[in-house]
Amino acid sequence: MAIDYQSLAVKGVQALSPYQPGKPIDELARELGLNPAEIIKLASNENPLGPSDKALSAAKAALSELCLYPDGNGFELKQALAGRLGVEMSQITLGNGSNDVLEVIARCFAARDSEIIFSQYAFAVYPIVTQAIGATGVSVPAKDWGHDLDAMVAAVTDRTRLIFVANPNNPTGTVHTADAVEAFLEKVPENVLVVLDEAYCEYLKGGQYPDGIRLLSRFPNLIVCRTFSKAWGLAALRVGYSVSSPAIADILNRVRQPFNVDTIALAAATAVLSDEAYLERSCEVNAAGLRQLEQALDDMGLPYIPSAGNFIAVEVGERAQEIYQALLAHGVIVRPVAGYGMPKHLRVSVGLPEENSRFIEALGHSLASVGQGT
Amino acid sequence: MAIDYQSLAVKGVQALSPYQPGKPIDELARELGLNPAEIIKLASNENPLGPSDKALSAAKAALSELCLYPDGNGFELKQALAGRLGVEMSQITLGNGSNDVLEVIARCFAARDSEIIFSQYAFAVYPIVTQAIGATGVSVPAKDWGHDLDAMVAAVTDRTRLIFVANPNNPTGTVHTADAVEAFLEKVPENVLVVLDEAYCEYLKGGQYPDGIRLLSRFPNLIVCRTFSKAWGLAALRVGYSVSSPAIADILNRVRQPFNVDTIALAAATAVLSDEAYLERSCEVNAAGLRQLEQALDDMGLPYIPSAGNFIAVEVGERAQEIYQALLAHGVIVRPVAGYGMPKHLRVSVGLPEENSRFIEALGHSLASVGQGT
Repeated sequence: MAIDYQSLAVKGVQALSPYQPGKPIDELARELGLNPAEIIKLASNENPLGPSDKALSAAKAALSELCLYPDGNGFELKQALAGRLGVEMSQITLGNGSNDVLEVIARCFAARDSEIIFSQYAFAVYPIVTQAIGATGVSVPAKDWGHDLDAMVAAVTDRTRLIFVANPNNPTGTVHTADAVEAFLEKVPENVLVVLDEAYCEYLKGGQYPDGIRLLSRFPNLIVCRTFSKAWGLAALRVGYSVSSPAIADILNRVRQPFNVDTIALAAATAVLSDEAYLERSCEVNAAGLRQLEQALDDMGLPYIPSAGNFIAVEVGERAQEIYQALLAHGVIVRPVAGYGMPKHLRVSVGLPEENSRFIEALGHSLASVGQGT
Repeated sequence: MAIDYQSLAVKGVQALSPYQPGKPIDELARELGLNPAEIIKLASNENPLGPSDKALSAAKAALSELCLYPDGNGFELKQALAGRLGVEMSQITLGNGSNDVLEVIARCFAARDSEIIFSQYAFAVYPIVTQAIGATGVSVPAKDWGHDLDAMVAAVTDRTRLIFVANPNNPTGTVHTADAVEAFLEKVPENVLVVLDEAYCEYLKGGQYPDGIRLLSRFPNLIVCRTFSKAWGLAALRVGYSVSSPAIADILNRVRQPFNVDTIALAAATAVLSDEAYLERSCEVNAAGLRQLEQALDDMGLPYIPSAGNFIAVEVGERAQEIYQALLAHGVIVRPVAGYGMPKHLRVSVGLPEENSRFIEALGHSLASVGQGT
């Protein structure tokens, strides 16, 4: 009798549904026979500006080294990050996107008998990495779409090894203040690691929000994760990192793959850190785009969750999946979030002004043709 | 009392020593105050030719998309690979280098109660991925530096989940014939997966060696791994893949990170597959370089292990570490293999003719100054 090889996989993996990325432009073009140049993708919280010139030049220069393995220690990038963030190089762990760092953290500190806590509606990668190692995910009901930090502390048991906190959170855009995060950290037992995922932190303006890195000295159980995929505009190259105590970073660096960040990525990320003007422009374009979208959604009478990120979750009603499809037919890719337990919402990333307008227009047509449902 | 956070890591990880990459040129330059342009690195089995023009053009063109996430499905690369290899796209799993695929295989099919079999002196990543998941590694004593395939079959127990076979093997360069590999596969129980790591297979000439992909239809427990880092000259970009049954590939694709291969890497790897002339030249330069090194080592009376790869393990004696250091001082980076249990050998990658000459000359000086020991 033929063997069912899938039944040989470890239990957690057998039950795993992989991450569903935003639909790539080329894929939609193939499927609907559209011209890729006429499609806009507002589905993956990418930076609409196009890359930083400094990053581009550095990437181009690094192409001469395609035959050589990357620097497995990422010396120059870690040096630049350490300087910018005011930390030691030994506190940094580089990842193939912050996805990689999140996964490595879970694999280092949790196993089949562990519990990992995250919030309802939080980033999909937390339950996926939990499931892949066969640990038990504890999803804590959200409060106003955001993390209920008190309930997350209350969910800690003897088996809890990790708590993932996304601030701001994706896909809801909710954010907690510095006071709230610090109060939370004070209540978490010190043998439970807290992963503060700050993938969208560069978009935060105003002193009331936490800077996780400033909290590391007070909370040795804290690991802060960040990425170059959002405000820094390098999603194609997969660079993320964590900052933690050197002891925790030493553990993480044992498990990360030795060449997990490639040569072009290292060069571009190192270079973009010196492009402060690019970062500022990214944040300005995003703030203006958020206002534009909010105004238009207000005008249409559509509810949305106020967002601190570079995206916004719009409540389009029970026919969200049909509206998503109708938007695709208009050449506009957004992200359905039914997989997050938000079947009435669509998440749209902030684009350039004309992209936002095109989305709003297509949304109006789609709502008219599909109907909003109840 | 302060918590020892390293003691919170899972047991396998606490005992883990990470992979030791070849020393990067920039690192040696920093350490010894040398001019990077005067250093040659023959330490990481890289392609000395420099990249394929087709790969370079495709990589350059892809730089315009730095802000966008990669195609998580790697559609175009899988299509090109499937066409070249005569397999279905659904049989392919892409990895961030073949290291990533090897790790994902272990995480999918083995756990703390599993045994994983590999050969003494085999690629260091096998014991590392085994240790990281807390499984038990079973290292089978080598025969003439190569895999003792009969002994590996004999080592199978009820707990065995995976067998890693590198053909050719790194760092020894040993290789088994098609007959030997097929006889081995016939003896392995069908519920034990065999990973045939063919990272160096493009360098094999002559019909007596196996092509793992041709064996997949006969052995459904087989997974074949390959890489773009060696003969294809794209080590900087981290692209590897496995070919297996669609059922196994489906499992692997659930666990691999959704964007594990980046945009530039996908573009360059897709393009290089159409550059047959580059591959041929890589193999010719390698064959000539191997002959050059063997001739010179014969002349020096130094024993070496005959190699089917793009490197050669030279027996320099008990003072191998000192000779390695002396070579560094001459600006020549090779790879010590004491970590592989081969304290008397150094592994040198095949370079361009002038690089090989420079290594031989520096080796002569180093042996004279250090002494060969006994």
